[in-house]
Amino acid sequence: MTKVFLRKKIQNRVLNGHPWIFGNEVGEISGEVSPGDIVDVFTHNGFFVGRGYINPQSQIIIRLLTRDKNEQINDQFFYNRLMKCWQYRQKIGYVENCRLVFGEADEMPALIIDKFNDYFVLQTLALGMDRWKGAIVDALNKIFQPKGIYERNDVPVRELEGLAQIKGFLSEPFDTNLVINENGLKFHVDVVNGQKTGYFLDQQDNRRAIQHIVKDADVLEAFCYTGTFSCHAGYYGAKSVLGLDISETAVNTARRNAELNNLSDVCKFQAVNAFDVLKAWTKEDKKFDVVILDPPAFTKSRENIQKAITGYKEINLRGMKLLKPGGFLVTASCTNLVPPSLFLEIIDMAAKDAKKKIKQVTFQTQAQDHPILWNIDNTTYLKFLIVEVS
Amino acid sequence: MTKVFLRKKIQNRVLNGHPWIFGNEVGEISGEVSPGDIVDVFTHNGFFVGRGYINPQSQIIIRLLTRDKNEQINDQFFYNRLMKCWQYRQKIGYVENCRLVFGEADEMPALIIDKFNDYFVLQTLALGMDRWKGAIVDALNKIFQPKGIYERNDVPVRELEGLAQIKGFLSEPFDTNLVINENGLKFHVDVVNGQKTGYFLDQQDNRRAIQHIVKDADVLEAFCYTGTFSCHAGYYGAKSVLGLDISETAVNTARRNAELNNLSDVCKFQAVNAFDVLKAWTKEDKKFDVVILDPPAFTKSRENIQKAITGYKEINLRGMKLLKPGGFLVTASCTNLVPPSLFLEIIDMAAKDAKKKIKQVTFQTQAQDHPILWNIDNTTYLKFLIVEVS
Repeated sequence: MTKVFLRKKIQNRVLNGHPWIFGNEVGEISGEVSPGDIVDVFTHNGFFVGRGYINPQSQIIIRLLTRDKNEQINDQFFYNRLMKCWQYRQKIGYVENCRLVFGEADEMPALIIDKFNDYFVLQTLALGMDRWKGAIVDALNKIFQPKGIYERNDVPVRELEGLAQIKGFLSEPFDTNLVINENGLKFHVDVVNGQKTGYFLDQQDNRRAIQHIVKDADVLEAFCYTGTFSCHAGYYGAKSVLGLDISETAVNTARRNAELNNLSDVCKFQAVNAFDVLKAWTKEDKKFDVVILDPPAFTKSRENIQKAITGYKEINLRGMKLLKPGGFLVTASCTNLVPPSLFLEIIDMAAKDAKKKIKQVTFQTQAQDHPILWNIDNTTYLKFLIVEVS
Repeated sequence: MTKVFLRKKIQNRVLNGHPWIFGNEVGEISGEVSPGDIVDVFTHNGFFVGRGYINPQSQIIIRLLTRDKNEQINDQFFYNRLMKCWQYRQKIGYVENCRLVFGEADEMPALIIDKFNDYFVLQTLALGMDRWKGAIVDALNKIFQPKGIYERNDVPVRELEGLAQIKGFLSEPFDTNLVINENGLKFHVDVVNGQKTGYFLDQQDNRRAIQHIVKDADVLEAFCYTGTFSCHAGYYGAKSVLGLDISETAVNTARRNAELNNLSDVCKFQAVNAFDVLKAWTKEDKKFDVVILDPPAFTKSRENIQKAITGYKEINLRGMKLLKPGGFLVTASCTNLVPPSLFLEIIDMAAKDAKKKIKQVTFQTQAQDHPILWNIDNTTYLKFLIVEVS
């Protein structure tokens, strides 16, 4: 096996457990390097660090799969890891639908697998992981005997690895319009055309967190996508729910989701630009009891972080102004580039500008089937906050 | 009304919403000062800041009750505030048992009221609040028609205010051994002799958070007090539960709680020093699937913070060592002197020393009926963490 030696003076990140090794951290390489191959990594003075896959074309040249010298990377390895992931989800109570594999947090860098009852959607986002797609599919078949497996590898990040953007079946074809159960409701999941893997499982616990505050309330949800928070609001007893999203397709699915749950009378949806509407309605002095903001990531790069901060502040300020005194703002941010403390600062700034007092009801993260490792920054990404605004 | 003018060069704390004014922040006083009286507070240049009660004997000379110039402090004021507190708890779904008033976070500095179904336990921890005890009791009677009200003012902090330590009925006497329902279980509450107000309502949501991980598990709870986490573990399907507490009285109540929930076969309790036992069992290499640590505050003063850090680290390190690989550590800290970030650092240090890898399952605060105000530090006090340890 090819041996890669780390430079002497590098940060402690890798030794502290982070699986990524950047190109400039690598010193001598002994042996051939073929993109996607498994290599052994050592410190400059020859101590074994771990074993992972290499891709010289990527900024992250190596992603470690194991730190156990005796653990070989083969089909059995992927079966064992998937089994471990599944046992973990069972232990913490995420069985019917769950993020079965959450990449780095599950020691499976660049692999995402979502389980929607009997169906699985996967993404292999790096070359070295993509190579093992066959082994991963075999393991899924062995462990779950699934009704279907689909790959959603139509993501730009794959191009940094020299991989093509593709999507398609990894099993016999199946009807890719799924219906899942969540918190007592049913939701459509469009495995082929939905965002990411088709559904945002990461908010499944947070959707439950609005249970009490929406009772008898007039609820506005901006950036509602397929209306999952809106339907929860209706289900939990809201008087009226209005969901806004710029995508006509998303709004159509939201209406179908409301229908599926017999909530069409309560939950209405409009395909509009939520930014514009929030702005206009603030001026018109419209008021709601609960405002929910679950926007897409306002940035994907550290360079645009200031733009993202401005965006989050803007919509939250508007949201607060649209609330009756004592109303609740439910607000989320899904980019790891805005850490939890910064998110709270943004909301605090918005409140000061809106001349509102806020009281924290709850502050949560993504659902537990997306584990957080403290030494891997980007595993902490979803912030979910409820505040009372007066 | 007596007018108090703040000094020119003081921190922005008060203007940013904190209700405490320290002696050294006060400049000129116009009018008489009688301990416990209501005074008006102004900036050095005469802008109205707020209205509150004064006690020159206390380090915190004034605690503000309102920032509204037109709001008079009278019986009606206390009725209105209690009503507002109650409406808030109803909105967020804390009805049967709740912390009805959480002092500063409810704009009622130094007042604590816990509701245990039809019974109320209160604490008035400052002279200026103690003066209004009658009005508060009247308001409780009007709003709730309670079966009983009890004061647990047997707390040393009252002496800093020149108040005596007392406890007793504020209603007709009643049987002070209550039983409450929580998460489908029943618990004894000893209003007269239990710690604080008789029961720790602040962990009511966190007790539910162990639901999945304890299934079929061997569970150890150190510092179990009256066994509420232990009984939850039994109720959620643990194979065996062992609760340890140094207090014979607490352990007896824990046993009675287990009995009350038909869990005596599963939940066992021992009156022992948990520190010693954790130490001894680590050496004996005993192993559990889940270890729960809910210790009392290891410090009440900033001076002893290092001692507290050492204490938390020690027990968490022992807890981790007592776990089987892939076991869960459930760990809490209830002092606001250890902020959330420091608590996580302590756990991280303990894991490094124990040579364990940890994965965050959930990180929570006190229950939502104890609201958090970001500008009032000590409203963020309870940290509750579950990590998988391997």
